[in-house]
Amino acid sequence: MALFVQKYGGTSVGSVERIEAVADKVQRFREQGHDLVVAVSAMSGETNRLIALAKDIQDEPSQREMDVLLSTGEQVTIALLCMALEKRGIAARSYTGSQVRILTDSAHTKARIQDIDVERIQADLSAGRVVVVAGFQGADAEGNITTLGRGGSDTTGVALAAALKADECQIYTDVDGVYTTDPRVVEGAQRLEKITFEEMLEMASLGSKILQIRAVEFAGKYKVPLRVLSSFEDGPGTLITIEEENTVEKPIISGIAFNRDEAKLTVLGVPDIPGVASKILGPISRANIEVDMIVQNVAADQTTDFTFTVHRNDYARAEEILRKIAVELGAREVVGNNKIAKVSIVGVGMRSHAGVASKMFDSLASENINIQMISTSEIKVSVVIAEKYLELAVRGLHSAFELDKADTVSE
Amino acid sequence: MALFVQKYGGTSVGSVERIEAVADKVQRFREQGHDLVVAVSAMSGETNRLIALAKDIQDEPSQREMDVLLSTGEQVTIALLCMALEKRGIAARSYTGSQVRILTDSAHTKARIQDIDVERIQADLSAGRVVVVAGFQGADAEGNITTLGRGGSDTTGVALAAALKADECQIYTDVDGVYTTDPRVVEGAQRLEKITFEEMLEMASLGSKILQIRAVEFAGKYKVPLRVLSSFEDGPGTLITIEEENTVEKPIISGIAFNRDEAKLTVLGVPDIPGVASKILGPISRANIEVDMIVQNVAADQTTDFTFTVHRNDYARAEEILRKIAVELGAREVVGNNKIAKVSIVGVGMRSHAGVASKMFDSLASENINIQMISTSEIKVSVVIAEKYLELAVRGLHSAFELDKADTVSE
Repeated sequence: MALFVQKYGGTSVGSVERIEAVADKVQRFREQGHDLVVAVSAMSGETNRLIALAKDIQDEPSQREMDVLLSTGEQVTIALLCMALEKRGIAARSYTGSQVRILTDSAHTKARIQDIDVERIQADLSAGRVVVVAGFQGADAEGNITTLGRGGSDTTGVALAAALKADECQIYTDVDGVYTTDPRVVEGAQRLEKITFEEMLEMASLGSKILQIRAVEFAGKYKVPLRVLSSFEDGPGTLITIEEENTVEKPIISGIAFNRDEAKLTVLGVPDIPGVASKILGPISRANIEVDMIVQNVAADQTTDFTFTVHRNDYARAEEILRKIAVELGAREVVGNNKIAKVSIVGVGMRSHAGVASKMFDSLASENINIQMISTSEIKVSVVIAEKYLELAVRGLHSAFELDKADTVSE
Repeated sequence: MALFVQKYGGTSVGSVERIEAVADKVQRFREQGHDLVVAVSAMSGETNRLIALAKDIQDEPSQREMDVLLSTGEQVTIALLCMALEKRGIAARSYTGSQVRILTDSAHTKARIQDIDVERIQADLSAGRVVVVAGFQGADAEGNITTLGRGGSDTTGVALAAALKADECQIYTDVDGVYTTDPRVVEGAQRLEKITFEEMLEMASLGSKILQIRAVEFAGKYKVPLRVLSSFEDGPGTLITIEEENTVEKPIISGIAFNRDEAKLTVLGVPDIPGVASKILGPISRANIEVDMIVQNVAADQTTDFTFTVHRNDYARAEEILRKIAVELGAREVVGNNKIAKVSIVGVGMRSHAGVASKMFDSLASENINIQMISTSEIKVSVVIAEKYLELAVRGLHSAFELDKADTVSE
């Protein structure tokens, strides 16, 4: 008799048949006596259809009106899902973001949830109803419709779970959990039973794009147990949870993330004086180019080399900006490479284990893979290597850290 | 410098191009210095698309959820129209029915407007914005989304005009006004410059389906000047207004309405005792069959004949019910005919002119058209004739009442 918040994404509700399948799933949970709040996305394709209508009118439509437009997508889904539930004899009631008072700030198209008024939902749950809430949307203090940005339905699910103090927030996707690495690259990749929020954050931002980062942050902050599982097959999925006290049994690392969409740029021979980093990154950031890794080594002969990575699509623009900055700064040269990949090992276990980084470097060296950049955090080590070695590196690391052995799956 | 509420229906906003054309029209009014509130329907086809999705799930879906689903149609239109206005440099803001607090009762799919909170709209108008409101929808006191039923966008327009005390409510449709009769039947049919609410009600309910009856009633009740005009071509349309004091110049009749979708049923030889009418019509009404004309003549030899008309689609069902009733009542026989048509002359002028009905009967007689039933009200006379004579009758009457002469157009 638990309270679950379930979130079903666009492909899970992509057709009337899929919506019926979701209703079947909800029915099974109801039959087990659980209370359910269900957050849903727009049917897959719908958001793109609506965006195309807007773009036919204006290249950059008003963000307020864009939110009014896009929020209809989830509204269609909540109505259809309630109909499918009622057809099964399950009392259900739908709510838009405004209706259950998912209060957000006024940052249209990328609003943040500030509060949820759960009174109405709790009344429905007490009356034995399944509550179906439109994901991705809310309303600001003045009642204007807002959206949380792409993937925001995850955040809706987590925020509802936090506000309702749900026993678990279950995110149904098209994968059956979080894996030690991408199964398309490493055949022996294993589904993780559990992973910590911090690890998930590092995995997500590094390319294992299963959950919206903001949703994971939110879940971590409010200690909402989060489970990723498949809409299409039964299985326990992966539980994302707070770190356990007892880390004795913890494997050293949980997974290997990678990203081949990056490019690196280096300014060589920059004068080693205060303020240089901001002079270099300021114009890049003002051009709306996101920077990922940043590495600056100690200075030699009063100059230093400054390197950072950007999304590959931004490479040419970033390089152009950088050449101008380099002249202004009196730097020697700008060099870059867009044939790179980033590989990271992630694991809270590495906190208590020495030598994790060197084991990683050993593994890469044994395959003759040159490391171009290194960056570390408390629970991850990232390296940049030539893109062509990516698969080789990931497979080597997966095996070096014994992730392909079933008994190393954390539990 | 007037305040206009304009309503654009589904075909007027049926595509991005059409929405752009509406924006052009709004722009011209703005350039003349007028304040505008615009109510819109769903893009044509959208409501049917949504209904089809629902019907894929359930034959009779929950009406509450149906409203949640269907109300997305207008929400898409308001956002797109605001984008098109902003593209033209016109400040605009969209609102759903819930957002501007179009308060309705809780009769889902056929709710009635109870109140509109105009504060927000007035603030926008004062700030120089065009306000775009989703037609057809509102919210009940608990915030549940409701819809007003098909054609309800007209009612939204009129209700907004009444609440805002607008100078005129302009209903843009695919016809350029109200005609003396159907121009497809009578070539010389004339557009009316003006028509009274009562005449319009009789015309509308009799088959000239231009405006939703409820919207006309509403406009009459709150004395909102209502104008029907074309979305696609410029022109003054037809003004629907309260009856003028000076009716000297009024033509005797304003128009000729007709309806070929009816069928008549007669119970012959019914005992002439109290309660017979309700015994006959009760079961018909409980079967959800709408009855239009009802005629009962004086009794001869203690029995009477009772005749009424129903929609042709309901003819078979009504006849079946009626045969049972006839047996119970000890009536002689049930006869019926579904090859009939109803023709009506409508006009407030006939109040002050004797002999209008006999002029009508003369015209029909001169064409050798037999009258099967007659029913009259203060401002209309309706007759039922054989369907095959319909066009002949309408053309004859149009000419007999001199409606095809340009100088009889009321002004």
